[in-house]
Amino acid sequence: MSSAVLELIYRDIASDMLEVEAEIRAVLESPVPDIASLLEVSGRYGGKRMRPALVFLVARESGGVCEGHARLGAVVELIHLATLVHDDVIDVATMRRRQETVNVRHGNYEAVLLGDIIFSRAIHLLARLGNRRALLALTQAVSTVCEGEILQNRHRQDPDLTETTYYTIISGKTAELYAAATGLAAHLAGAADGVVEAFALCGLKLGIAFQIIDDCLDVAGEEAQVGKSLGTDLRNGKMTLPLLILREQADEATKALLRRVILGQEDAGGVALLNDALRSSGALEEAVKRAEAHVAEGLLAVRSACGRDSLALAAVGRYVLERKL
Amino acid sequence: MSSAVLELIYRDIASDMLEVEAEIRAVLESPVPDIASLLEVSGRYGGKRMRPALVFLVARESGGVCEGHARLGAVVELIHLATLVHDDVIDVATMRRRQETVNVRHGNYEAVLLGDIIFSRAIHLLARLGNRRALLALTQAVSTVCEGEILQNRHRQDPDLTETTYYTIISGKTAELYAAATGLAAHLAGAADGVVEAFALCGLKLGIAFQIIDDCLDVAGEEAQVGKSLGTDLRNGKMTLPLLILREQADEATKALLRRVILGQEDAGGVALLNDALRSSGALEEAVKRAEAHVAEGLLAVRSACGRDSLALAAVGRYVLERKL
Repeated sequence: MSSAVLELIYRDIASDMLEVEAEIRAVLESPVPDIASLLEVSGRYGGKRMRPALVFLVARESGGVCEGHARLGAVVELIHLATLVHDDVIDVATMRRRQETVNVRHGNYEAVLLGDIIFSRAIHLLARLGNRRALLALTQAVSTVCEGEILQNRHRQDPDLTETTYYTIISGKTAELYAAATGLAAHLAGAADGVVEAFALCGLKLGIAFQIIDDCLDVAGEEAQVGKSLGTDLRNGKMTLPLLILREQADEATKALLRRVILGQEDAGGVALLNDALRSSGALEEAVKRAEAHVAEGLLAVRSACGRDSLALAAVGRYVLERKL
Repeated sequence: MSSAVLELIYRDIASDMLEVEAEIRAVLESPVPDIASLLEVSGRYGGKRMRPALVFLVARESGGVCEGHARLGAVVELIHLATLVHDDVIDVATMRRRQETVNVRHGNYEAVLLGDIIFSRAIHLLARLGNRRALLALTQAVSTVCEGEILQNRHRQDPDLTETTYYTIISGKTAELYAAATGLAAHLAGAADGVVEAFALCGLKLGIAFQIIDDCLDVAGEEAQVGKSLGTDLRNGKMTLPLLILREQADEATKALLRRVILGQEDAGGVALLNDALRSSGALEEAVKRAEAHVAEGLLAVRSACGRDSLALAAVGRYVLERKL
């Protein structure tokens, strides 16, 4: 189901996406063999290229695709790649997209530097585009992404995390780059400020929904279907939206169990018990409902600003929500 | 002696340097206490602010200080700070400027992210300056710095390192940022391309000399005087210029010892023996001579382009060379 929606979305922008791939490949080249082989590993991290796809979808609905959009898409994706390389170092991750991570293959030393290289080359590419607003927005976004990740780290093993802080964290670490991609895509397409802001808000809301569904999948997904290790949030003492909802609704015994799991005071048996409580509580379904509401809000903002629905963004929203539990 | 030269250099640009400090402080602020306290640690990494000082010294000799120079100086220093934060992660360093490093105090997780935040905020500040050439040159420089560090890593425990690769490494990891600072300072001052290039070359040569002297100090300096751990290059199997010179001149037994030390096959006794051989060989003095030649070449380039000597850069060169063995 998801992949059918996604296919429809990508079919229309296939040639644009090829241009993005060419820009990304050019940035990840080097005449020095040692550097080239390292850059090549990160090139294979490519996933669905959701962020460049959003750039083109928004461009088509806000004034038309122009020369700068492929470059913007490449820059946003490269920034995303750089954060993945650094995330794997700090999470001590060993696998990504069924391959060994850069930190495993080449060590932390080179993985940190590789992330820096990809990031600086991405901004170099953006500087060549010469759009001041894009430069300001994207360098700001990178800082916000990292600040979100630091906040997340500070609130590990914090059973009292508030919903406000949860949203600050996921808006930063995940949604901010989506918002920059959609907002700047409309800006480059020549849209008025109100339209730019609406698309930026829609990107933010899609990113928030994406992260909420990700947090639900970590509790209740099938590893084979999702394609990555799951259950890590509970084991790492990370409070996510389903847990925040459970904390509100559960009886005292479950609340106490949740607290002990987040504080790392329970063994695998306790974690499994909490997982069962979570699945039977309705908190996951409630979290998905909230994700749906975020998508609807984003689509409504675009509709209000443009005077019509965005079919493409609605399809992306459907895809985000259909990564099924 | 060194500090007297340095005092003279800094006296003339004291008020300019205060402006740089204000710019740096503003970038390292945050309304979020968790982020603010983290940024504050890196703010205390400040050393002699050699790079911003070079910006003003060059500005005064190539057209005059303008509004953008303080910002350029701050950006270059912030990029330097970001690389220090990441370097400490990858070198597993515990102390910097007599304080615990960010990675020791807050863990690798936050240190990697902090470096990313400082770097993205530095480029954000630069984007506000709106000078395309500065953006292109500095984002390029960051990539080159990191590539130099990766090359250095690939040639750890390589007793056959060539002098060409040694210079590629130190030009990248150290001298490139000096070159960007001096070249862009002249560019912002309105200098012609030939003058800009001469100052960039002079910055590069000063940076190369700085690194060569650093490499000599690592062998023969006094820790109390230099202010950091020494002797680490030999222990880490790092070939530096004094060792390259020794390798050319030494007898077969010393060459074999050098080879074994670099390959990590000798204990502390063997390392001490090599250190003695190095000190008595004249290789250190020869390395200093080469550093002097680099400084002279840089100053000559400026003289040729400007038609007169740069007294300030000559003083910086003297300082670089006088960090005595």
